[in-house]
Amino acid sequence: MKHLILLRHGQSEWNLSNQFTGWTDVDLSDLGRKEAAVAGEKILRSGLLPSYCFTSYLRRAIHTLDIALDTMHRDWIPVVKDWHLNERHYGALQGLNKAETARKYGDEQVHEWRRSYDVEPPALTPDDERYPGNDERYSLLTPDELPLTESLASTVQRVRPCWEELIVPALRLYDNVLVAAHGNSLRALVMMLLHLTPHQIVDEEIPTGTPRVFSLDNSLSPTSDRYL
Amino acid sequence: MKHLILLRHGQSEWNLSNQFTGWTDVDLSDLGRKEAAVAGEKILRSGLLPSYCFTSYLRRAIHTLDIALDTMHRDWIPVVKDWHLNERHYGALQGLNKAETARKYGDEQVHEWRRSYDVEPPALTPDDERYPGNDERYSLLTPDELPLTESLASTVQRVRPCWEELIVPALRLYDNVLVAAHGNSLRALVMMLLHLTPHQIVDEEIPTGTPRVFSLDNSLSPTSDRYL
Repeated sequence: MKHLILLRHGQSEWNLSNQFTGWTDVDLSDLGRKEAAVAGEKILRSGLLPSYCFTSYLRRAIHTLDIALDTMHRDWIPVVKDWHLNERHYGALQGLNKAETARKYGDEQVHEWRRSYDVEPPALTPDDERYPGNDERYSLLTPDELPLTESLASTVQRVRPCWEELIVPALRLYDNVLVAAHGNSLRALVMMLLHLTPHQIVDEEIPTGTPRVFSLDNSLSPTSDRYL
Repeated sequence: MKHLILLRHGQSEWNLSNQFTGWTDVDLSDLGRKEAAVAGEKILRSGLLPSYCFTSYLRRAIHTLDIALDTMHRDWIPVVKDWHLNERHYGALQGLNKAETARKYGDEQVHEWRRSYDVEPPALTPDDERYPGNDERYSLLTPDELPLTESLASTVQRVRPCWEELIVPALRLYDNVLVAAHGNSLRALVMMLLHLTPHQIVDEEIPTGTPRVFSLDNSLSPTSDRYL
């Protein structure tokens, strides 16, 4: 039996200030760091110790993983960082206060941007300082790969190569693999694992800092899943 | 021009309690964490931002690297962890208080164990709980690779494959490469880089938390080196 453990990062500074985050590289809050340590404790107690890990290019996920691994006394295991696991890009909404945005565009419009499967928030323009093409870490991406905005559908499409080319091969080699990432990139993984429809995946809420374990058979099909 | 930056971990808890550490996986002290952040600041200000990093399997080096990278806003760059970069194994001295050991064996003997090139401290036996073969992280090592004790000479021999097979190829690909490791594994790298004799290398002291930058020409020969 193999296990894939999904871990959403703990509370970030912008969760606290109620801003749209997306690819903005904000850090964990103190509560977020505590959540990460508790997540590590839970994995440690479950005995499902990971031998290989993945995370995104964003520090709130990287720090969540670092803290959880330290709690497990497993700082030494390999960690692969991949931008494909980044949070959904929130386009021109990134950095805006969620309440202000709701007052400006209306609750219904904001709800649609946040909760529909294939509606994208307003796009950035490439001259915007928030455009990922202006960030060194994305300098090897092609223009097609650099998002101006993303729906959940485009996030799923973007996460898919990481699943197929990195995570699945790691699961063939290792019994327990841990992915520390974000609400929407983890939703994308859940959708692929459980073959969910767009209608089903928008209702999947993955809580922060709570490890979700998928038990997988030898063909890597999930036989059960649970939160620790 | 390429740059190889060597960074010795900051003060550890056992530096504070004056114990022989070796492969014991002790954490940084609060001062050690501060040293790591200062080292990150120095690298940031130098402009020599690394694109690729190496560290050991020991958390005092891993945490030093994590903190320094976070200070540089470069949490996202690849980090390769390799047991070949571990501190010199201190054999049966690991865990003993340095002052007590000097009283028991004499200052001269302890000085010889610590400062000679090819004298090994007393060896562990494989039934000792400190034997690395009892630690999961070294479970893929061959019996030949698992140390019972090490001299600086055997540490140099053990570090060499990491230099030749991992660090040199990374330096061909990236302009700036950072290695966060330990007093003796970094000495081994300095010995190889500068073609030092055993007599010369025992006098090389690498201070904690102080980045040492080697400028390398295209054939990866050092043209100069300095501390930041």
